[in-house]
Amino acid sequence: MYREKIKVLDCTVRDGGLINNHYFEDSFVREVYRAVSAAGVDYMEIGYKASKSILSPKEFGKWKFCEEDEVKKAIDGIESNTKLSVMVDIGRIEKDDILPCEDSVIDMIRVATYVKDMDKAIDLANEAANKGYESTVNIMAISKSLDNELDEALDQIEKECKAHTVFIVDSFGALYSESVTCLMEKYKKILKTKEIGMHAHNNQQLGYANTIQAIIDGANFVDGTVYGIGRAAGNCPLELLIGFLKNPKYDIRPILDVIPKELLPLREKIEWGYLLPYAITGMFNEHPREAMALRKTKEKDNYLKFYESLSATDID
Amino acid sequence: MYREKIKVLDCTVRDGGLINNHYFEDSFVREVYRAVSAAGVDYMEIGYKASKSILSPKEFGKWKFCEEDEVKKAIDGIESNTKLSVMVDIGRIEKDDILPCEDSVIDMIRVATYVKDMDKAIDLANEAANKGYESTVNIMAISKSLDNELDEALDQIEKECKAHTVFIVDSFGALYSESVTCLMEKYKKILKTKEIGMHAHNNQQLGYANTIQAIIDGANFVDGTVYGIGRAAGNCPLELLIGFLKNPKYDIRPILDVIPKELLPLREKIEWGYLLPYAITGMFNEHPREAMALRKTKEKDNYLKFYESLSATDID
Repeated sequence: MYREKIKVLDCTVRDGGLINNHYFEDSFVREVYRAVSAAGVDYMEIGYKASKSILSPKEFGKWKFCEEDEVKKAIDGIESNTKLSVMVDIGRIEKDDILPCEDSVIDMIRVATYVKDMDKAIDLANEAANKGYESTVNIMAISKSLDNELDEALDQIEKECKAHTVFIVDSFGALYSESVTCLMEKYKKILKTKEIGMHAHNNQQLGYANTIQAIIDGANFVDGTVYGIGRAAGNCPLELLIGFLKNPKYDIRPILDVIPKELLPLREKIEWGYLLPYAITGMFNEHPREAMALRKTKEKDNYLKFYESLSATDID
Repeated sequence: MYREKIKVLDCTVRDGGLINNHYFEDSFVREVYRAVSAAGVDYMEIGYKASKSILSPKEFGKWKFCEEDEVKKAIDGIESNTKLSVMVDIGRIEKDDILPCEDSVIDMIRVATYVKDMDKAIDLANEAANKGYESTVNIMAISKSLDNELDEALDQIEKECKAHTVFIVDSFGALYSESVTCLMEKYKKILKTKEIGMHAHNNQQLGYANTIQAIIDGANFVDGTVYGIGRAAGNCPLELLIGFLKNPKYDIRPILDVIPKELLPLREKIEWGYLLPYAITGMFNEHPREAMALRKTKEKDNYLKFYESLSATDID
């Protein structure tokens, strides 16, 4: 697939940080930055930006905060045309923590939000835009959004928000390709002046496939992570995405090189990828938190019991 | 997806046998049969049927030959509505080895073939049909078939062959969804009186996604394996497929139950799944044999060197 407008964002450190509470070694972040830069990846999301007055630095690693000096240190001396991004969560950042863009090494701020928090998300995305950043709105848990509420949120973004891109975020890895197409149609219909992005999770081994589907349907901004690292089942593997895209600016080789050096050793220490409990939460369109909890118990491979525990929930 | 005509075939033992030279314990085969039977899977392919006069029983396990007594022993006493299938390779079986269907526990014979061997494949499929079996033709390495040759082969099947289903076999895990759709269109156009089947490999994490795509495009016969076991990157995971299909006759629970009991221990001994060398051969549309050889060496995780060895081949 060749379409010049397509941009790729690596969120290895940002989404991967959800597994290890953002405690990555500097050397890891540096080698990932070196690899994605050499690979011609357009953006690297290097972590979250959060306020230390809201979240305690004792409880999270530095990539939850992405202070300027830390980011500068990690990328120092590495040749790169890759822009830097951070993600912000509603309620975990004060506006004053966002420096004017000209004083920051960060180029883009992505606002992660649920549909219900759209007012706050737009406010934050506009704050970032007003300070000179590129900004995006990433609508999480999209597979659980109600159709009318999503319509209204997208309409509001189109009318009020300065973000240049709005992401479909399949937080639960629950979408099949037909639903991706359906969401893309909705986004395209309402978001006349925005680009559309795709952030997929791999619970059902559809992270990459759904990303391709979104591209076919017109998405021009897509996320991947090296070796698919990311919370629970992880994300669309960047190496596959780069193998698929035909723009000659991309080079898969630095990604292939960094995987055995940095990702395989890390995978020995922390877990992500295709594991049945995550496939099951994906099938049920549920947050993986119960599966993540299960994986820390002796029952971690009792898939049948886990499946039945989700099936049996009494609801009315 | 609900369509009553859709049939699922489990080829855990057959395709998995390509990793371990068909040396499965009886207990493994028995437990897989028990699980797929309880799950309502329509067919189980229990191995290859080959002639002991052509292939030596000293070099292959019993599931390369599937002698009647062995198959009967493995399934004895297990309640099941699952039909049994074997695969045959051109040149590895004598017609006399195929018993009349009424004397056999096998219900279906699938003929694996390259486009170039279509005359022989049709002859073998018709032999099976004439002896009372259901039969299929499975066109391997379809991603390397020339368009005109494939047209001719399909036309010949339509006119001369008694097989009820013709499979797209993505042996190299090289297909993207758009190519699946393109092949499905071709099959549907030529094969007016046949069903279409899909057998996908998972090199690029597209085994399941491409199987769904084929179903969307009209395929009514699809292959999967428990926990995705199969040569190299393996196949479409049966558990995901059963999770996707909405026919109430299918029950995912026995599959979830057998994975930790039989597949996880096996995965400790033999290797399959998403490994970069297989992703790379998939991207290059090549047989995984070089990647399989690499995985047995100390260089098994030198992905960059492997990629460059495939890129650098001098051709004219």
